[in-house]
Amino acid sequence: MSLNYAVVGTGALGGYYGSKLARSGKSVHFLLNSDFEYVKQHGLRIESVQGNFNLNDVQAYRSATEMPKVDVVLVCLKTTNNYLLEELLPPLLHSASLVILIQNGLGVESKLAEQFPNLQIAGGLAFICSNKTAPGHIRHLDLGKLILGSFNLTDLKVLQQVVSDFQDAEVPCQFAEDLYFARWQKLVWNVPFNGLAVVLNSTTDRIMAQEESRRLAQEIMYEIVDGAIACGVNLSHEYADEMLAMTAKMPPYAPSMKLDFDLKRPMEVHAIYSEPINDAASNGFEMKKVAVLEKQLHFYNTKRR
Amino acid sequence: MSLNYAVVGTGALGGYYGSKLARSGKSVHFLLNSDFEYVKQHGLRIESVQGNFNLNDVQAYRSATEMPKVDVVLVCLKTTNNYLLEELLPPLLHSASLVILIQNGLGVESKLAEQFPNLQIAGGLAFICSNKTAPGHIRHLDLGKLILGSFNLTDLKVLQQVVSDFQDAEVPCQFAEDLYFARWQKLVWNVPFNGLAVVLNSTTDRIMAQEESRRLAQEIMYEIVDGAIACGVNLSHEYADEMLAMTAKMPPYAPSMKLDFDLKRPMEVHAIYSEPINDAASNGFEMKKVAVLEKQLHFYNTKRR
Repeated sequence: MSLNYAVVGTGALGGYYGSKLARSGKSVHFLLNSDFEYVKQHGLRIESVQGNFNLNDVQAYRSATEMPKVDVVLVCLKTTNNYLLEELLPPLLHSASLVILIQNGLGVESKLAEQFPNLQIAGGLAFICSNKTAPGHIRHLDLGKLILGSFNLTDLKVLQQVVSDFQDAEVPCQFAEDLYFARWQKLVWNVPFNGLAVVLNSTTDRIMAQEESRRLAQEIMYEIVDGAIACGVNLSHEYADEMLAMTAKMPPYAPSMKLDFDLKRPMEVHAIYSEPINDAASNGFEMKKVAVLEKQLHFYNTKRR
Repeated sequence: MSLNYAVVGTGALGGYYGSKLARSGKSVHFLLNSDFEYVKQHGLRIESVQGNFNLNDVQAYRSATEMPKVDVVLVCLKTTNNYLLEELLPPLLHSASLVILIQNGLGVESKLAEQFPNLQIAGGLAFICSNKTAPGHIRHLDLGKLILGSFNLTDLKVLQQVVSDFQDAEVPCQFAEDLYFARWQKLVWNVPFNGLAVVLNSTTDRIMAQEESRRLAQEIMYEIVDGAIACGVNLSHEYADEMLAMTAKMPPYAPSMKLDFDLKRPMEVHAIYSEPINDAASNGFEMKKVAVLEKQLHFYNTKRR
């Protein structure tokens, strides 16, 4: 089975993963916005710790209506732009298309399922340090693993083929048996480091370098783990400690929310903070520390509009 | 009984309250640091919502060793400078001198009592919006009440005379039966608004104007009340709501910690955050939200050194 792909949101994630697939010979159609002209002329430039490469002759589009129908749509938008999906997705879908939301946070698939009741939906989590540094330029700093899981698939064959396609494209990719588990697992890192980077106006290395902020990151991680456990997700404080140790070894990194903040873009507070807080609360656990961060980020989100 | 006074720390508080006492005819000796030359020449300038005035011919000193022994020492330093008291106080003290720590936070009197085991110590809390805006210039924006209470006094006569002297000087002043209660009561405002002003890079009016940050301030107030209750202090959430309503009516205000932050001075994180957290914890109550703010402020305090 040879799948063709669309990438919706050709940024730090979509640009990277889409380029890897295209380079390995897959047919990948990229939806671009402000970078369209640049990419059409110059292609996509991936500066990666695993080796730089250029993707020339990119199948680039400035509108979804110009794109072909595809087997797999990789949604790599910020969740704050998910309101666009109602308009962007229909031109890309045939009756069996699979949509994979490669996004952070909770609740994104269920919202999409409300809008498209018959859609085959999966979710994805990218464990990667990457940034878009200029039009068509992606800088891949560290890591890169992709975890994909079913939300409502009646048949896992296509999703398993996607996993296999990524593996062929030299992207470490795993199939997750439990997408909800995988989403909570990712939050263990995202919640402390995205929020603290903004509120402390800092990067991961400086948060890790100082005892009080490192301890705060750890405590917030533990609270996320406890929230996950309340929701029936089998995480542990040991996993949080592993993530902390991994962060200590990472190069200095500005998480995506910090870049959004610096570039005056809306931050993904709802999906990464409010949804997990609500899920934990409806299971009887109050994430008090996470809620402080949530409200601080809300303040900054609103102040800047 | 006519008392003479020394003011240690002639800033937003000491400059204001000392000037009011001196203007009412009391003998007040001011210890100054960087403002000494200016104040010696030009006096102290108080711009107050209750009417501006100049205090000329200020009894100003640049060193405690040049000052006379006094009946009452008003310590109006930031708690971060309390390490100076070991050197500053002895020249000012006769055998019956009273030292009043007009400072925020908890634990300051007990630390002083360790250093000066026989000293008569009281504490004071200033409910005032005032800033030092330039050398010798104090701007009094709102409020002004002073609450004084005994820490270890064997006789309350002198302290009651101080209360009376302030009242004669048109400073609303009350004698607190329970200093520990009064200190916790003050924390109900200080903890949320000092810390949030720094971390949100904002002023009271903007924190109050937005729903999420106003709710965060309220939740932190409630947690302080709950911490106080755990410590046997009879506060209530209703008191927190009153403080919140008062804040909504205040003019836009940058709390002292925000000014310290902006001027790159150390912030009073220990007295205002760590000591209450420790007191509550040793009484079995964990102030989780306050602890987030504490660690964030610690990060900024350390980062700037």
